[in-house]
Amino acid sequence: MKIGILGLGLIGGSLGFDLRSQGHYVLGVSRRESTCQKAVDIGSVDQASIDLSLLASAEVVFICTPIGLIVPQVEQLVAHLPETTIVTDVGSVKAPIVNAISPLWKNFIGGHPMAGNTDVGIEAAQRNLFVNRPYVLTPIETTPTTAITVLEEIVRSLGSIIYHCQPEKHDRAVSWISHLPVMVSASLMAACLGETDPEIFQLAQNLASSGFRDTSRVGAGNPELGVMMAQYNRQALINSLHQYRQNLDIFINVIEQENWEVLEQKLKLNQQNRPKFVE
Amino acid sequence: MKIGILGLGLIGGSLGFDLRSQGHYVLGVSRRESTCQKAVDIGSVDQASIDLSLLASAEVVFICTPIGLIVPQVEQLVAHLPETTIVTDVGSVKAPIVNAISPLWKNFIGGHPMAGNTDVGIEAAQRNLFVNRPYVLTPIETTPTTAITVLEEIVRSLGSIIYHCQPEKHDRAVSWISHLPVMVSASLMAACLGETDPEIFQLAQNLASSGFRDTSRVGAGNPELGVMMAQYNRQALINSLHQYRQNLDIFINVIEQENWEVLEQKLKLNQQNRPKFVE
Repeated sequence: MKIGILGLGLIGGSLGFDLRSQGHYVLGVSRRESTCQKAVDIGSVDQASIDLSLLASAEVVFICTPIGLIVPQVEQLVAHLPETTIVTDVGSVKAPIVNAISPLWKNFIGGHPMAGNTDVGIEAAQRNLFVNRPYVLTPIETTPTTAITVLEEIVRSLGSIIYHCQPEKHDRAVSWISHLPVMVSASLMAACLGETDPEIFQLAQNLASSGFRDTSRVGAGNPELGVMMAQYNRQALINSLHQYRQNLDIFINVIEQENWEVLEQKLKLNQQNRPKFVE
Repeated sequence: MKIGILGLGLIGGSLGFDLRSQGHYVLGVSRRESTCQKAVDIGSVDQASIDLSLLASAEVVFICTPIGLIVPQVEQLVAHLPETTIVTDVGSVKAPIVNAISPLWKNFIGGHPMAGNTDVGIEAAQRNLFVNRPYVLTPIETTPTTAITVLEEIVRSLGSIIYHCQPEKHDRAVSWISHLPVMVSASLMAACLGETDPEIFQLAQNLASSGFRDTSRVGAGNPELGVMMAQYNRQALINSLHQYRQNLDIFINVIEQENWEVLEQKLKLNQQNRPKFVE
């Protein structure tokens, strides 16, 4: 099959490797000539160009640009495509993208491979990035079944675990497990930076260990990514943040009231339930 | 030197290994006969007993019991000791312990090796647990200099990095980097457990990845330990929680107002400053 990839970064570049190794012919488009050259050199794509028209012959196109560029790029891209082409994206928020693109392109299916890491660019592309990783597909009522079937088969060949849901449910789920943790963690780091006693501030730095390392990590990551999460998943994130604040207030209250039995119950509930989310 | 260890768990048992390997003669006391036997068998102590009087001949005694037992155990122990014996503890909160023991024992110095992990018991004891780990000592104005010097030399021989501070400053510092993260993380887990849509709840579990794993870890750990932190460091923790809540409210507000520039500035500040705390 001829498969197009628009945006040759970590995700796009890694997709290219795996699709080629499945025997597909991979066409890549990047805004930069040097990235196109690099993608061909490392064997991530068969052919690359800075020109969208390269993708005209692709049967399936993956949009792997930063999230803010997905909709504008698809708007330009579809002028070059026959209406049978299946288009999918890999953005980490789905409702705004699906709502914008569905009216433009019948054969569009939102997608979200949960396989990113902190690396960026074609240099970070790697083989088998998607193996055993969740890959969410968010078809809607009007999505043609044949398009879903074709895309599913490709995603399954990457070794991913496929989940289906409505775009809005995806966004609410990732607000809990991905976007809320960023803001919770960011608030922790910001609170610590507010300590005004220089001796305590220095001591806190000296004593910080694995607990602080883990809890502060995602709140001190890529700032642009954090802003994008908040911009594109704003309403779900705000809902999660308000729920979180209510739970925080309960913990504060329980500690102020020295209600140790309730505190222990709540911590036990956490301990029992966390394995449902992560090992 | 003859060194006593009261409480043969992870910390006490590990201390025994390292002190013996420095050539000290180590006397261990545990509440359980089986723990005493085990500690001798594995070579963590030279001699062990369930009787506090074994420690009468020790020049230095480390109190390594759970935090709630430190003060009551020292109250019993001192009846057996000559007044020259140096007593120190390894509890993770210092002001309540130092305030309670200092009037009873002149040669007492509060201590806190930052070297725990989630394992417990003499079975978890290991060699070189304290190497390159912070070890806080909290002598007060009336602590004899000779006692400090002797204890410092022992702690230095463990390979630890020694910090000195007032007990209250220690407790405020660890509330930032150890106890606050537990409650922040616990509130995250509790908030996620409150999702009432079963499809979203299941999806969140399926999609949870490294970000959620790290941010939820310390809030779903040992419940008894979490309660003890809150009990013994209550005031410092409440102060940190209120500061945290203010910072959380700022993040919520910035997102509600779509003030993306400020959000990016705050996330950048986090990114720049976190390396001061952890690598």
